[in-house]
Amino acid sequence: MPDLDRVVKEIAEEMADRQDRGEVATYIPELARVDPKAFGIVVIDADGQVAAGGDSDTPFSIQSISKVFTLTLALGMVGDRLWRRVGREPSGSPFNSIVQLERERGIPRNPFINAGAIAVTDVILSGHQPREALGEILRFMQFLAQDPTITIDEAVAASELRTGFRNIALANYMKSFGVIDNPVDFTLGVYFHHCAIGMSCRQLATASRFLAHSGRHPLTGHSVVSPERAKRINAVMLTCGHYDGSGEFAYRVGLPGKSGVGGGIIAVAPERASIAVWSPGLDASGNSHLGRIALEMLTKRLGWSIFGV
Amino acid sequence: MPDLDRVVKEIAEEMADRQDRGEVATYIPELARVDPKAFGIVVIDADGQVAAGGDSDTPFSIQSISKVFTLTLALGMVGDRLWRRVGREPSGSPFNSIVQLERERGIPRNPFINAGAIAVTDVILSGHQPREALGEILRFMQFLAQDPTITIDEAVAASELRTGFRNIALANYMKSFGVIDNPVDFTLGVYFHHCAIGMSCRQLATASRFLAHSGRHPLTGHSVVSPERAKRINAVMLTCGHYDGSGEFAYRVGLPGKSGVGGGIIAVAPERASIAVWSPGLDASGNSHLGRIALEMLTKRLGWSIFGV
Amino acid sequence: MPDLDRVVKEIAEEMADRQDRGEVATYIPELARVDPKAFGIVVIDADGQVAAGGDSDTPFSIQSISKVFTLTLALGMVGDRLWRRVGREPSGSPFNSIVQLERERGIPRNPFINAGAIAVTDVILSGHQPREALGEILRFMQFLAQDPTITIDEAVAASELRTGFRNIALANYMKSFGVIDNPVDFTLGVYFHHCAIGMSCRQLATASRFLAHSGRHPLTGHSVVSPERAKRINAVMLTCGHYDGSGEFAYRVGLPGKSGVGGGIIAVAPERASIAVWSPGLDASGNSHLGRIALEMLTKRLGWSIFGV
Amino acid sequence: MPDLDRVVKEIAEEMADRQDRGEVATYIPELARVDPKAFGIVVIDADGQVAAGGDSDTPFSIQSISKVFTLTLALGMVGDRLWRRVGREPSGSPFNSIVQLERERGIPRNPFINAGAIAVTDVILSGHQPREALGEILRFMQFLAQDPTITIDEAVAASELRTGFRNIALANYMKSFGVIDNPVDFTLGVYFHHCAIGMSCRQLATASRFLAHSGRHPLTGHSVVSPERAKRINAVMLTCGHYDGSGEFAYRVGLPGKSGVGGGIIAVAPERASIAVWSPGLDASGNSHLGRIALEMLTKRLGWSIFGV
Repeated sequence: MPDLDRVVKEIAEEMADRQDRGEVATYIPELARVDPKAFGIVVIDADGQVAAGGDSDTPFSIQSISKVFTLTLALGMVGDRLWRRVGREPSGSPFNSIVQLERERGIPRNPFINAGAIAVTDVILSGHQPREALGEILRFMQFLAQDPTITIDEAVAASELRTGFRNIALANYMKSFGVIDNPVDFTLGVYFHHCAIGMSCRQLATASRFLAHSGRHPLTGHSVVSPERAKRINAVMLTCGHYDGSGEFAYRVGLPGKSGVGGGIIAVAPERASIAVWSPGLDASGNSHLGRIALEMLTKRLGWSIFGV
Repeated sequence: MPDLDRVVKEIAEEMADRQDRGEVATYIPELARVDPKAFGIVVIDADGQVAAGGDSDTPFSIQSISKVFTLTLALGMVGDRLWRRVGREPSGSPFNSIVQLERERGIPRNPFINAGAIAVTDVILSGHQPREALGEILRFMQFLAQDPTITIDEAVAASELRTGFRNIALANYMKSFGVIDNPVDFTLGVYFHHCAIGMSCRQLATASRFLAHSGRHPLTGHSVVSPERAKRINAVMLTCGHYDGSGEFAYRVGLPGKSGVGGGIIAVAPERASIAVWSPGLDASGNSHLGRIALEMLTKRLGWSIFGV
Repeated sequence: MPDLDRVVKEIAEEMADRQDRGEVATYIPELARVDPKAFGIVVIDADGQVAAGGDSDTPFSIQSISKVFTLTLALGMVGDRLWRRVGREPSGSPFNSIVQLERERGIPRNPFINAGAIAVTDVILSGHQPREALGEILRFMQFLAQDPTITIDEAVAASELRTGFRNIALANYMKSFGVIDNPVDFTLGVYFHHCAIGMSCRQLATASRFLAHSGRHPLTGHSVVSPERAKRINAVMLTCGHYDGSGEFAYRVGLPGKSGVGGGIIAVAPERASIAVWSPGLDASGNSHLGRIALEMLTKRLGWSIFGV
Repeated sequence: MPDLDRVVKEIAEEMADRQDRGEVATYIPELARVDPKAFGIVVIDADGQVAAGGDSDTPFSIQSISKVFTLTLALGMVGDRLWRRVGREPSGSPFNSIVQLERERGIPRNPFINAGAIAVTDVILSGHQPREALGEILRFMQFLAQDPTITIDEAVAASELRTGFRNIALANYMKSFGVIDNPVDFTLGVYFHHCAIGMSCRQLATASRFLAHSGRHPLTGHSVVSPERAKRINAVMLTCGHYDGSGEFAYRVGLPGKSGVGGGIIAVAPERASIAVWSPGLDASGNSHLGRIALEMLTKRLGWSIFGV
């Protein structure tokens, strides 16, 4: 796979030189401490060949990228009943807006805005202790990434718990409409912890492979989800995966993807490859600035956009 | 192309029997008068082979489907400067909401909500008489459909002009922010007329072929837009093409598409085919009820979703 | 009445020296042309004694102050049925917000925001030609002010008609909900013209006397409205008379009042006096900056607040 | 004072017979348990004469009426600096709306919507333990009512704490903007407890006397607040005291007042009297249905409206 490998290496080099790197998230000290110069990229194709560039093995806080995997897990638990709790329309609002919840009586617009991801976490938690639910999520990530060393950064989770007033507000607001079943503290505890999972680009690209390959996990041969469900998760990523920058991401990159405030982005080229990039500086919509640019270069050079060659 | 042909015929037959057909738009008498039993479908593949079913040659009011073509035309005229006047993010609101305009100082969220399409029409009009601009749009449609008989239904346009108070409100509201250059009456006159163009599924599927084939018009060999632009128009259709049902359409159908309140929908399977369906009954979001179901069947049976097989 | 006279004169003198005068409205040239140094005040007590200071006889554009009188006129025509078309709650929004209309299906929150005043004008117009309705409004003002020389500034009205896109948007938006009966152009024509009436502080204070005296016009002895209705119009002025600065006006001045973007304010001290002030510079909420300060001084020095001595 | 006494007795009798009594609040069992037939009224004039009718000595949950007294207390502590934390404009929204907070970056519109009252409570709490702050509020109420037996209904407070998810959301949302200084649990603990104070109409009318009499407490001769501040608190009650029914209350009753979801309302006739009514059934805006009607009768029969006789 020389071509892909060369493209990935070139992009990593170009990114290393860029001066415009966005702004690193500073709302908790653990995120602010990250090296703004970091950049990593990993692409894994259908045959399992890996093209890597930059800081491809450095773990970072996956943050909202975890929402793709909790969505997958919750759909596996309750099936399409999940959609009674959360919609699947783009929100047209910032990731932490509470206005939409008031208009739509506590039902979040989609599972990738904060309110929606909290509602999904609440579904996973139902009937369990927080510790058990969290264990299940972490084991799911370890299984998908085929790496049992993946852990949660407790300092990040603790910081979020101490300062996440807006998420506490969102959860209580949904609770007032009956959309949250468990004690708010439990649900948020699990939510903040799964957002604090630390993973590298290599681990994330591995974990995302099932989405590119009809729901099957190529390494294990297991079916993680049905082909139908894989497509649908990709569809939700395309329309809602980047908060109020989702349209821009579709327009420029042309792949389903999900970003996190830690600077990571996963993307899926159906039937072709799974991709993870990481650069801590964010743009105005809260998505990795260089991460988005790197993905735009990648799909352009490889002709991988789902919208045409 | 037996397979495609058979699938299309089967879908047309299944649709003929459905009892759930949605509600025909009644806000103007000309739309209300349409036969609710009508259903048409046309798919044209990369080789130009046509698979047709049902009322595939009956013309209907294309309404908002025209917005794809006026967007294409306006981008051809002013290039990416167009995006200073209109965004490309999903709106999270009904097609005719005015709330978003107040929050974002008159800049519509995307070119497919009414406000955005009016702003795009205003760009096409600039420096011309309404009659000239309208002629240009109509000739563009005739050229793309390779059919000089396509016309505007003046009765529809006149009804819209008489009753389109909300669109008049949107246009004047944008004008108050300086987003509309021309006299509001001129811009709206052109807007209402291009929405009133009558076309059949066959004509629409032909006119949409350039979007499926890197911007080239297979019949003429002409490049209508660059490959880059074709992809990007498809991306905007995917995220914004069905008003507040865009997420649902991506989730179920998995193709870029654009619906109109006349019951038509165009859809694009990149590199594979262009598609047009028509059934006048609408769902709660204002999109053709059976049209969306037919497209969902089509992509499932043919494995055409852009989100995976 | 030496005391009142002295207080009024003192205030006029203090206002003449102030450097902070707010910003004169510039959205139409006719308003921008006014001398920013102008200041006038007139108070007429229960006995009809007049205390005047500054430019008390200079006519200015009464603008939204006219809304008090069109409300009075419309209530006289259709009685409390008027409240089916317009609410009487404060809006919590700027004077020209369209957001509230979307949420409340075209019913304006109160008769003093632009949308509400347009709806009231539409009621006055019903069944008449615009010229007749306008004549009726003008004769009502002349009668209340006991001055047949009061006229409409046609240049102001024409400028508003040419540039009032947001008001055109509001009217069409309400029309789309069926709240406006007449052709929008007719209703807005009357609206822009009655806002363009030119009056002096002396004329406005005279015209407002019935609101301070149980609905009776002291000069003529005629009952303009019932005592009940006079109180209620005062209540609406108190809660809604100053757009998004109504709470501030109640808090500081403590009298029912109504401001206009031309810099005028009328105020009512029940059983005591009617008041008009004028200074063209506006504060951030669009109310006369010095006008409000002068009224605050007046009520404080005379102990006229309705909220206690 | 035969006249006042007769009017009050008549109103109490008329209210006893009414069939339309509104709906008793049921969101916590303690409020739902109240007798819907209850009605009480007490008026205390400038000379201290008391006119009472109905269940004038039955204690009920004062709920939001407490906000008038916490506002008074907070203004006494920090003066006009309080207005940096909370506005004084009517909100145009239901009492527990969170939308306005998003638009205005966490600053509540006024001290009488829930968010505003929570912010005021936070100011009172600052630098103290919750128990101390609550003790101070309770002693203030006992002092104003001249009755040391007034207590907090712990069952009501506990129920609110268990179910008050929307208030928890509001408080955390404000905290995310830095508007709340103390731990949210502390602030809400004090808030829920002062809302759960139980008082009778007689106690409330006594406690409100300073607002009717230039800030002085007639029984003790003490000045509770300056005359200026008393007027201003009355002004805020007039424009904001009844949530989204404030305009209606001003229009019909014509007195500054404050309602609570327990069915109580206090009202102030400046220089004349303080008034308390109670009837548990609420109207659509959450204000006591018969309470408002009784006050409307009272001001009409006695000519006490601040907007004219």
